[in-house]
Amino acid sequence: MKILVPATSANLGPGFDALGLAVKLYNVVNIQEAKFSSVSISGEGSDNISLKRNNLFISVFNEIFKELVSSSANFRMVFENNIPFSRGLGSSSAVIISAIASAYAMAGFKVDKHTILNKALIYENHPDNITPAVFGGFISAIVSNNVVHFSKSEISDDIRAVVVIPDKPMNTNQSREILPKSYTLKECVNNISHAAFLATCFLQKKYDMLRLASFDMLHEDRRMVALPELFDVRKIAYENAALMSCLSGSGSTFLNIVYKNDAINLKTKLSNKFQNFKVEIFDFDNDGFKLLQS
Amino acid sequence: MKILVPATSANLGPGFDALGLAVKLYNVVNIQEAKFSSVSISGEGSDNISLKRNNLFISVFNEIFKELVSSSANFRMVFENNIPFSRGLGSSSAVIISAIASAYAMAGFKVDKHTILNKALIYENHPDNITPAVFGGFISAIVSNNVVHFSKSEISDDIRAVVVIPDKPMNTNQSREILPKSYTLKECVNNISHAAFLATCFLQKKYDMLRLASFDMLHEDRRMVALPELFDVRKIAYENAALMSCLSGSGSTFLNIVYKNDAINLKTKLSNKFQNFKVEIFDFDNDGFKLLQS
Repeated sequence: MKILVPATSANLGPGFDALGLAVKLYNVVNIQEAKFSSVSISGEGSDNISLKRNNLFISVFNEIFKELVSSSANFRMVFENNIPFSRGLGSSSAVIISAIASAYAMAGFKVDKHTILNKALIYENHPDNITPAVFGGFISAIVSNNVVHFSKSEISDDIRAVVVIPDKPMNTNQSREILPKSYTLKECVNNISHAAFLATCFLQKKYDMLRLASFDMLHEDRRMVALPELFDVRKIAYENAALMSCLSGSGSTFLNIVYKNDAINLKTKLSNKFQNFKVEIFDFDNDGFKLLQS
Repeated sequence: MKILVPATSANLGPGFDALGLAVKLYNVVNIQEAKFSSVSISGEGSDNISLKRNNLFISVFNEIFKELVSSSANFRMVFENNIPFSRGLGSSSAVIISAIASAYAMAGFKVDKHTILNKALIYENHPDNITPAVFGGFISAIVSNNVVHFSKSEISDDIRAVVVIPDKPMNTNQSREILPKSYTLKECVNNISHAAFLATCFLQKKYDMLRLASFDMLHEDRRMVALPELFDVRKIAYENAALMSCLSGSGSTFLNIVYKNDAINLKTKLSNKFQNFKVEIFDFDNDGFKLLQS
């Protein structure tokens, strides 16, 4: 079987640990029972031989598979890694989700998306990454008693993501450590009101309001000082019809949302200015992971 | 002419300064040009003679009226005040909105709801009270450059507000002073994620999720210690089918939301237990203020 899992942008604007979405950039894993275990990797991580012996996918897959069938088996695993590592595009979530879902499938169990999502929470405590990876679309999520509850909104085909992927990673843990331990009431109220309003703008497809709605006072500017070019990315994005321009996850990627007719122009402007950064246009994904027979 | 303005509950759960709604409890003002100024008050404030000479309505009305027509006139004003003062049901917002809207009407100007809302922001900086007072329904609001931006969701007739109005007021300013100056990231993230999710639950009419969605870590418990019976109000509400039970505004009123068939039972239980508190069932208002010719 084959599984596709989308890349995700979490921590959207004011929606720290709360709001995320999925884009049509997929990791693909092809997995078959085999006489001998084997692993091949193309794309991200293909130059790292140690990943062939052990990686996050293999350890999560084995753990879940054993839990389900109390035995082990040999598999041929072929990874096509398109989501960059440590760039804030949900690569860990994609790996965890694909490992759990394919372990269920290979163990002969029903692959229920809610089950997969709540299993994933054990490995990755950010509902705003794992939920869009499972269900696609725009997601507002909370965790209560180790269960993810969420609302999903389909994202219109009228808009596109113009994603800027810097040549440098930002480590999630380091990126969290930059953040202060406490916040003023003004900062809290800003993010509470804007995150709620941002969620309603996605639900009501009021994309023209995204720029105002996405104003953050908790994390973005504090994190962006580690890579100050990102302030210019945002400036150029807003000068070129971006509806919203925000850090993706904890960075270093920047997510710019535009109407589809504005996407190529913005991509061109950003590519010309930031020649060391990758700039890509993606559609939004409204489905989440997909299992295919191959 | 006659104006009706609904009571409002703001600061809904985690939605501090962000989320509010309107209920069908109205202040009514009847206002006519007259040879001599006169004021009569029934309901709240009728026992306070000084309110006949000056009150918030009169001062806001006169200020706006003069601004619009550069002259003054005499009016007969008849107030029917049904919204209790200083109980967290938006009585100040109702007064401000009715004063501005009726000044526009009496000055012969068009009464545009967006204009009235943004004028009101000068007098009352809480968009989560003034916006539902103007437009009704459930509101998620932000303020940006002195303009209110908001999303409205109609509230279903399937649910009711069971409102508990204590015999003691809570002063808004004092109630704010109880709050700490800073908040942990955990508290912030809780309220950001829950406020966004709460807004989506109202928009998608997922009322069964309100209890989980409305969990607050910033203000409610800290304020409720001033009136500890409110913890029992919430306990009884949740034991009796409440979908959501939260402080209304900065208190002292408690707003309980239930399916309509559960309203009478909850009202009875709460009335029996809290004999000094008023307990009322209200429909939700989806229209906001109404101007009528009288």
